[in-house]
Parts: sequence; C-alpha cells; structure tokens
Amino acid sequence: MRHSAAHVLAQAVLELYPAAKLGIGPPIEDGFYYDFDLGEDADGKPVTFKPRDLARIEKRMRKIIQRNFPFERREIDSAESRALFADQPYKLELIDQFEADGDALTTYRQDSFEDLCRGPHVAHTGEIPISGLKLLHSAGAYWRGDEFRPMLQRIYGTVFPGKAELDAHLALMEEARRRDHRRLGRDLDLFIFDDEIGPGLPLWLPNGNILREELEKLALEKEHDYLRVSTPHIAKEQLYQRSGHLPYYRDEMYAPSEQEGASYYLRPMNCPFHHKIFGDRQRSYRDMPMRIAEYGMVYRYEASGSLFGLMRVRAAQQNDAHIYCTEAQFESEFMRVIDLYRFYFDLFGIDKYVMQLSKHASAELGNKYVDEPEMWLKMEALVREVMIKADVPFVELEDEAAFYGPKIDVQVWSAVGREFSLATNQVDFVQPARFELTYVDRDGSEKTPLCIHRAPLGSHERFVGFLIEHYGGAFPLWLAPVQAVVIPIADRHVDYAYRVRAALRSVGLRVDVDDGPERMNKKIRNAQQQKVPYMLVVGDRESAENSISVRTRENEDRGVVALAEFGNHASGLIAARKNAM
Amino acid sequence: MRHSAAHVLAQAVLELYPAAKLGIGPPIEDGFYYDFDLGEDADGKPVTFKPRDLARIEKRMRKIIQRNFPFERREIDSAESRALFADQPYKLELIDQFEADGDALTTYRQDSFEDLCRGPHVAHTGEIPISGLKLLHSAGAYWRGDEFRPMLQRIYGTVFPGKAELDAHLALMEEARRRDHRRLGRDLDLFIFDDEIGPGLPLWLPNGNILREELEKLALEKEHDYLRVSTPHIAKEQLYQRSGHLPYYRDEMYAPSEQEGASYYLRPMNCPFHHKIFGDRQRSYRDMPMRIAEYGMVYRYEASGSLFGLMRVRAAQQNDAHIYCTEAQFESEFMRVIDLYRFYFDLFGIDKYVMQLSKHASAELGNKYVDEPEMWLKMEALVREVMIKADVPFVELEDEAAFYGPKIDVQVWSAVGREFSLATNQVDFVQPARFELTYVDRDGSEKTPLCIHRAPLGSHERFVGFLIEHYGGAFPLWLAPVQAVVIPIADRHVDYAYRVRAALRSVGLRVDVDDGPERMNKKIRNAQQQKVPYMLVVGDRESAENSISVRTRENEDRGVVALAEFGNHASGLIAARKNAM
Repeated sequence: MRHSAAHVLAQAVLELYPAAKLGIGPPIEDGFYYDFDLGEDADGKPVTFKPRDLARIEKRMRKIIQRNFPFERREIDSAESRALFADQPYKLELIDQFEADGDALTTYRQDSFEDLCRGPHVAHTGEIPISGLKLLHSAGAYWRGDEFRPMLQRIYGTVFPGKAELDAHLALMEEARRRDHRRLGRDLDLFIFDDEIGPGLPLWLPNGNILREELEKLALEKEHDYLRVSTPHIAKEQLYQRSGHLPYYRDEMYAPSEQEGASYYLRPMNCPFHHKIFGDRQRSYRDMPMRIAEYGMVYRYEASGSLFGLMRVRAAQQNDAHIYCTEAQFESEFMRVIDLYRFYFDLFGIDKYVMQLSKHASAELGNKYVDEPEMWLKMEALVREVMIKADVPFVELEDEAAFYGPKIDVQVWSAVGREFSLATNQVDFVQPARFELTYVDRDGSEKTPLCIHRAPLGSHERFVGFLIEHYGGAFPLWLAPVQAVVIPIADRHVDYAYRVRAALRSVGLRVDVDDGPERMNKKIRNAQQQKVPYMLVVGDRESAENSISVRTRENEDRGVVALAEFGNHASGLIAARKNAM
Repeated sequence: MRHSAAHVLAQAVLELYPAAKLGIGPPIEDGFYYDFDLGEDADGKPVTFKPRDLARIEKRMRKIIQRNFPFERREIDSAESRALFADQPYKLELIDQFEADGDALTTYRQDSFEDLCRGPHVAHTGEIPISGLKLLHSAGAYWRGDEFRPMLQRIYGTVFPGKAELDAHLALMEEARRRDHRRLGRDLDLFIFDDEIGPGLPLWLPNGNILREELEKLALEKEHDYLRVSTPHIAKEQLYQRSGHLPYYRDEMYAPSEQEGASYYLRPMNCPFHHKIFGDRQRSYRDMPMRIAEYGMVYRYEASGSLFGLMRVRAAQQNDAHIYCTEAQFESEFMRVIDLYRFYFDLFGIDKYVMQLSKHASAELGNKYVDEPEMWLKMEALVREVMIKADVPFVELEDEAAFYGPKIDVQVWSAVGREFSLATNQVDFVQPARFELTYVDRDGSEKTPLCIHRAPLGSHERFVGFLIEHYGGAFPLWLAPVQAVVIPIADRHVDYAYRVRAALRSVGLRVDVDDGPERMNKKIRNAQQQKVPYMLVVGDRESAENSISVRTRENEDRGVVALAEFGNHASGLIAARKNAM
C-alpha cells in the first residue's frame, strides 16, 4: 500500500513537473518517500518543493487514486527498458546496475506511469485509502546517499488504513518531535556541538554533565563488585593487530597519528586495554571471576550522513565492563549480568524490551566465525539456557554473532513506543587466547578464561539521548539537573531564598534561586519549561515560618510546607531514586 | 668543588683506561657526572663500568686529591686545542661547536690532565673533601642526548663537605629510592605501562584508580560552586588555530588524524573547549563569575627521553577549571583560588611551597607577549596584591609569563624534601577576545571577560606520583585503596571474616578478606607491605563477641575492639579526611 502510494506520488509529480527526473521511491517504516531532481534555478541551486507544492501534489494523488487504475507488472528486456527510460538518467543508472548484477528487469504501471520496480503492489490505485494519506515534508537527499552525487528532493509521505490511524500516527510523531533529544538538548542546556571542534563530538554542558555523573554514580553503587580502571584512549597499531580490530575494523576508526615510526589510533573499543590489565600478572582461580569496569571513551568514525544528535556520535563513553571467568562460573556470571540489565530497565521504567541472541552459522566457521564448532554450540546453548531460566523475552538470529562468540543485543522501547538498540552483551572465547590470558587452576594447570563483554546502558551518549525522549526531558527527581528553583516573590525575600537554597543544598539537593527581574508567574513558567521538578515560592509568610510554597512542574500546588520537612521528603526520594515526587 | 671532582674523575679514568674517550663532565644538583666511551667488546656492545671498577676509580681519585695538584686555567687557540685533543673525537666536536658559536677556548689542567672547560674550579685538588666523596653508579647515556649518536658510559658521583653531610644525602637518596613512585606503583598495584599501548600512556589499575576517584570526589565537594562539563578530547585544527596553540604549540602535540580533508588533533589543553561553552550563548553580568571545571585529559607528545613514570606522561588528566569574571571580580576570584590551593596543601600536609609570579618583559611586548603594556602592569600588580594579602610565600620572575598574561607556578616540597612543580594558575586577557567571548554588563554594553586558568593539583598523574613519594605509599586512611584487610586465623573463621567485611563495607570502608593459604603472620606482613592501614584479625573470641583484633600498618596493636565501634571510628576519620588512624 505504501509502496503503491509512492508510485502514485511519482505519477503526480511527473504530471505537474514533466521535466522532473526520478530517483527511487521505496516504502519505509510508517510511510514512504520518492526522490526527484527538479533541475536548478537561475542561481544554480536545486529547485525544491515548497509546502504549497506538496498540497498541490497530494491533491493530484487523490485524483489518481480515485480513478482506480490497475497496477500492471511486466518483464522487459534491456533495449526496451533503455528506450522507456531514455529521458530518466537515474533510472538508466539503476538499469546498468541491475544488469551488472544479472537481475531481471520488471516494471509496474498504473495509468500512463510506468516505473522500474520489483513490486509487489496493490491491485488498483483505489485500494490506497485517501482518508489515511498525507504528504509530510520534503528534504534534500543525495542520490544513492553519496555526497558527491547530485542532491535530489525527497518527498516523505505516509498512508494508513483510515483517518483515525493517520491522526494517531501524526500525534505520535508530534510527540516524538516534542521529545526530540536534539531539540530538548538545546532547550534544557544539556549538550552542544561545535563546527570548529567537529561533527559527532558532543560538548556536555553543566546540566547534561549532571545526567552523566548521576548515571556513573548509579553504576558505582550498583556495580560495586567490579574493579574500576582507567586506560588510555590511544594505543599503537600493534595492540589492535593483536586484538583483531586491525585490519578488520579500520574503516570505522579515525586515521592514525604517526609519531616517530609508530601509528597511534584512537581506540574503537575498550576490551584490549582490559585484557592488558588482566594479563598484567599471573592470575589464579582465586582471582576469578575478575570483573573490570571502565566508563571508557571509544572513537568511531561514523559517516557524516549517519550522525544524529547523541544517538550516533563519533566519540562515545561506553558503560563497559569485561568479566573474566571460568567455564563453571559462566552461568552465574551471565545471570548476574541479565539481572543487572533488569535492574536498570526497572529503574528507568523500560517496560518493553527484547534480547536478540545472535548465533554463528556453521557454513561460515573458519571464515566469519572462529572455527570451534563445539564451543559455539556449547556457549549458545548455555546462553539460551540462562535466558530461559531468567525468563527474559528473547529471539534467536542465525549468522549474526561476533567473530569471537555469541552476541546478545537488547532492543528497548521508549515511553512513546519508539524502538532503540541500546545495550550489548557478548561472550568471547577468542580474544583471551589472542592476549595469552591465563589463570592457574586448582590443579596447577594454566587455563584460558572466558570473557563476557557487557554494556547494559550502551554508551552514555545514546542512553542519555534515549532518556531525553523517554522522559520528554522531565527527568525523575534524582536525575534532574536542577531539582528545585527557589522563587522569591519580592526583593525583600531574596535573602531568605538563598537561605532556602543553602538548607536544601546541605541535604544534597541541586537547587537554584531565580532572583532575576521577571515576575513570579513568569519565573514559574520558565522553571516548568526547564522541566525543573519543584518550584519553591517564598514570600512574607514563608520567610517568617521557615517554610516554602511548593509547586510541581506538572503545576500541582502542594501548598505551604515546612522547609525541613520538604528537605527530608525530597532527599529521601532522591536517595531511593524514586520516580514519584 | 663538584665540577673539580668531575675533572679528577676523568683523570682517574684516563689513568686506568688510557684508551677511553671523554665526553662531558658537568656538576649537577647534588653531585656531578662524566661521560666516557670505553669502546666495544667482542660482541660489539659498549664496554661498561662494573661496581668494582667504580671502587677502583674512586680509590685512584683519592690519590689524585691527596697529591693536591693546582687547577690551572689557560686560553688556547684553535690549532693548539686540536693538537691537544687529537685523540679525543668528542672534544674535537665540542671545539667545532665553540668555534662555530664564536666562543673562546679555555682549558683547566691538574697534574697531567687537561680538559676543555670554562671553569671555575677550586684552586687545588686537595680542596675536594675526601671524606665527602662517593661515586654512586654508572649508566648508559647517548652522546648529546641523541639516541642516534653513540652510547657513552656516565659515572655519577657526589661530594659533600664531610662524611656527615654525605651520609645524610645518601640516606635521603635511599629514602627517595624506597619511595620511588615507579617502584611503589608496581608494588602497590597502582598503574602500569605497556609496550603495545605506548610509552607515557599509563593504565590505572583498580588500586590506582581509587586514588584518582578519591581526588575527584574531593574536588566535587570542595569545588561545588564550579559548573562541571565534559568535552571531546579531539578537535579540528581550526579550533587550535583560533586559540593560538597552532602553530605555536605544534611540536608538543600528537600528529593529527586526517579525515575527509579535516585534521583532528588530540587536545594539548582544555581551555578552548571551555571557551566554546562560555560562548555558546550570550552571557550577562548576572552569569558572572562563571566557573567551568573539567577533569580533562590533555595529550602532549613529550620526548621519549623525558618520560618518567607518572611524573612526565603523554596523556594527563588536568585538575582544570576556567573562571570567567569581570575585572571587578578578579581580586576575590583570585583569592578564592589561592584559598583552594591552601586547602589542598593543608589536607595533603604540604608544608613547604612557594608561588612563582612570572611576569612579562616590556622589551618583548608585541613579540612574546601580547602588546597591552597597561593591562600587563595592572594585572601583575593585582596578582601581587592578592598574594601579599593572602600572605603566601612568593617570588617574582621577569620574562616568564604566558603570552596571554601573568602566570603563577607553584613549587611544592615532598615529605622527604624533594621539590616538585605541581600546580599552575594563569591570568588570561587574550583568549576570551580571540574566542569573541562577551557578557552584557549592567549598562547594556558588551564586555570581554577575564579568564583565570587554574589547576591546583596540576595533573592527576603527576599529583598521584607526588603523593606516592610524599606518603611513601602509606596513604592516609581516606585515600588508601584498601583501607582494611580482614585476616581469619583458621578456616572456621572465614565466614565471620566475610561478615566483618560486609559490615564495614556497608559503612563505606574499602575492605578485603585474605582467606588465602598463608599463615596469619605472613598475611599481616603482606598487608603491611601493601601499606594497608588496618589489619583486622578474627579468631574464636572475635567471632563470638562480634569484635576484631586491630593492628595498624605501623604494627601498632590496638587490641580487641567491637566491630561497630571500629566501623564508626574509621568511617568518621574517612568522612573527615583525617590523617590520624
């Protein structure tokens, strides 16, 4: 249905802009798009679609739908296809590619419009529900996503079975836009990017840094039986050759800094550094399991086009640890990791998640996967068993493992139903041997440990990006960068406001005073826009009584409360990391 | 006296090794050295001095001293000098250099030995006190410090007015060796270096990481009115061009990573990133002073030869902040910074320190220093005034400022009397303008703030290196990586030992159990070697009474103490960061 709507869109555009050149027009999640080249204007800039153009095109689409043309499929040969698309250079390029790949050429046609397409489509244009159709917006997009090719104009649209479904979807999109972490990141002073520093390299502002620090503090408490280390962000080429990241991973790494004959790379992963620490001395079975944790920065040179706020960056702080254990310890260690995931998900109100167990493919043993068939089956079985025992929702995927062992990626859904890939968890029976890691067992023999890689919150950057959307910026009290703003009614209450701040800071709250020139109501509104949990208004009565008038960011009026009582209440909620206020 | 002893050393070596080629032999702090080339052995390796050779040479030196030869100075011309040193290739190279520099050639001679030298010397060899003379050791040293030139053998020696002074010096050196941070760093599992990662790039092991975390926690509490941020470790060339680090600082920076036409540099300083955060939005006088803090990593490609454990590294975490303030706020902000220094110095028992106020030189205005003569005089006067008011010991140095303003470097002395350059504090009236930083003043006009750069603990790496020596590894309780070890007397006490650990951990202590196979006394010794503050021995009586037998790392026996009482006592000391135990 959505793919068919894309064809109708292309027909409508061609009828209104006969000289338009067509790119491609696939269905996407929740909608479809089509790319067009409208040529250049007098200044040599690409001609774009204006909102009123979209309205005109949508109107034309409705007409085409109402006339209920059938979609007709046919196979054509090279010569005919080249004749048919003689004035469509992008289509000719696609034909070249299909032929080079040895693919058959098929077209779909409705009315006068015929497009190179593999289908499938609905039978008639009339099956596209007019009441559920909407063109959303248009944006520039490079042909084939290549910034050295022409910039085409992409029209995004969507179609749902009916108006109700369309409206629900548009409302969800509006909510997602309202919760867009990039917009809230700026509105709430959480982070910025800067052209002179570089794309994908966030600067955490004081408010955003508090989020990071709170996450770190949480991990320190919850993961107290991990040994915390700090390791360099750069290392010589040799290290990554040993780990196998070079040459395999080179494309995702920043180019090296060449110094006195050595090549230093920004690290794409923390694991080799932790292996070095495990391997620093002879370990014994008494040291096992050894859990080494680090909020370590990793650097990956993601393509410019894929960078997206905090969700895809080039420098990310991993919520990382590596657990070195014996085979006998594997099950309980793995279970502990799953429990840790669940602790975090409960705390953040992540109700919906699924774990994907990515397994090897036996045909690829010795190629994509290390050639230890029995070890693969054994570890996959063990992981599956633990997940069943832990009663977590999971699916299994063939041929998606890491080269060194099975992988568990965790998908979570935000409060508004958007899906995110957040966490990862991997079993590694290869790298410990590459780094010659051993422990002396009870019987005096040297054995190679297993290694579990785990990052239950993924990277700080992406997790904070997720939390911003998940909470729409209204973070739980314990996480909120500013937990309360004291608002003096008049100048004579400013001193008392600062005394309130001092009293609440002394019990651990993050409190500001707004003693600016605005009026009280404006200050309350400002604080609410900043999603500050509590506004504490102080006037004559409060100053005299050592109390505060408490209002919440949801504009609930809690009335006058004794200062000490409020401090106790709030610091108790914070210590318990309660979501309530 | 020490320089003269070096000449006597050279004479003694030449008498014993007539074929030796001489390098140079200057006096150094607390002693002297001389470099010799003894040729190669049968395997082509440089011949070295053995300890018994040094004893023989020292004996020969005593003889020369006793014969009380006069030191005679003379000027010689090129031809004569070349004849005199015809068989001394290194001396000939020096003669070439002196002549190229247009320097006169002078020699000093005692007995049959004549050396190219500018002096001065004592009148007779007999003035060198035999009882205070000692050759210390010998080590390889590249000619002119250049690793591509021959490796010479350097003999280190020292001479003091008498035996008592020599012995005191040797005792101090022995104590410094015992406290050597590199040795203790390994013995106490604090940090390691790794060849595959790279020189000058420390890996912090769990114990060392606790030191870093404790320092960071301390700063968070003490510097709570700073805004904390986190910024990228790399940035484009453009940023450093604007800040002035490029090209000025290029030699100290790692070579760039070239990506898609942009050059990314590891940052040598944090300031430009903080300037970006200040400049992110229009600031007002109401935002001032704005204190931006970050424990930021900086990267400086120090020469291989200058790397020295944690004291000189290539990646260092600065205890950094930048304070943006108005001119009117400068004095009080600067005073606060000095107070912070003093807080830290008091806490760490640094009794002796001196601040060096480095000033501009008016002849270099517009060249080494920004050409604002009035601003220089004004700021230097202000800084001087604050230091006098604060009553800190300080000296003034001409022509040693930063290009952007006066600089205050702080020298401190460790408990064993060694001097360290630790902290720095700079006034900057240039960079804010380069970054177009402004604030709107009360009168609506835009003004450029002043910036104070401050790092009261310098870098984590160097400061921890200093603390290791300062405390000889016996860190105060609050800082000690492991604060107590529980030692069960027999296997039947192991369960109780773990209950003790749990009880003490719950009140915030870092406690381990040593349930290994060694005997109790050996375990106590191990813990004392690890400088663990408390050993808690538990046997039948302690298990029955819910108590522990407390012993300290100084081997003081505190007897049996109720577990809860000990927990209260220790956690109180820790919370107060008391040095007592």
